[in-house]
Amino acid sequence: MTRPITFRPDPQIDLVLERTVDVPRDLVWRAWTEPEHLVKWFTPAPWKTVDAEIDLRPGGIFRTVMRSPEGQDYPNVGCFLEVVPQERLVWTDALLAGYRPASPPDADALVLTAAVLLEPHGSGTKYTAIAIHRDEAGRKKHEEMGFHEGWGKALDQHVAFAKRM
Amino acid sequence: MTRPITFRPDPQIDLVLERTVDVPRDLVWRAWTEPEHLVKWFTPAPWKTVDAEIDLRPGGIFRTVMRSPEGQDYPNVGCFLEVVPQERLVWTDALLAGYRPASPPDADALVLTAAVLLEPHGSGTKYTAIAIHRDEAGRKKHEEMGFHEGWGKALDQHVAFAKRM
Repeated sequence: MTRPITFRPDPQIDLVLERTVDVPRDLVWRAWTEPEHLVKWFTPAPWKTVDAEIDLRPGGIFRTVMRSPEGQDYPNVGCFLEVVPQERLVWTDALLAGYRPASPPDADALVLTAAVLLEPHGSGTKYTAIAIHRDEAGRKKHEEMGFHEGWGKALDQHVAFAKRM
Repeated sequence: MTRPITFRPDPQIDLVLERTVDVPRDLVWRAWTEPEHLVKWFTPAPWKTVDAEIDLRPGGIFRTVMRSPEGQDYPNVGCFLEVVPQERLVWTDALLAGYRPASPPDADALVLTAAVLLEPHGSGTKYTAIAIHRDEAGRKKHEEMGFHEGWGKALDQHVAFAKRM
């Protein structure tokens, strides 16, 4: 059988958010993978996610539109790479739907692969998100953009939303 | 269950090699996916493939080194995206092993996702290779580099090699 890839982050290049949350894994997964739920928590307030498209299969589109507090919209398009229900979700913006290579970004643009790994932990869930960058400059840029605060705040919103589901 | 992505090439952006070959599908697959076989046919002569590394799973490395007739080596590193034994092999050089985004290429560099699809056809195999580009410029560049002649000649070598296996 196919062996899964082990996501062993490189601390020079990658960033990790790891936290145990008191929400069952099936709710964490559903809040993540259904567009009508995702838009409720995906972007740290006062930013909003105003649209989402999720074709939940390898090669399927993952599209979101984020709106700034000033009302400007920022579309993001990526592609799912791995989808293992309730366990693992991997996507990248280096590819578009159907694995088409994305147009060439600026040399200093942030290009990302992200892995979300879920494990049961008592009645809750161990949540691990790994941001995989091209290089050390990518990691630094993402850190300066506020990776830890931003992804942490989104997870707070995610947990609060999932508890109300 | 997860629905597979249908590779419906866009004739403006993608290139397709489709041929029926008189080699059973299991031999076509083995000649493709085992490094010691791949090096025998992968590069149209007089170029050679002098090294290959194949970690045959989604996220696994696909690395080759091609040698020009003048003796210069050209390494290529990519990542497998889909591996369905004897049916489907998809990889890209937009990502490195473990799905890490590749370093930013030149704006006009050829960045590729490729899908090889195999179907049984009598005692032989229907072989379809699709080169998926970023844009129309990528398709044109690849065509000018000799996609049809090069991939066709490699398939001739592949078939001749597999028949001797």
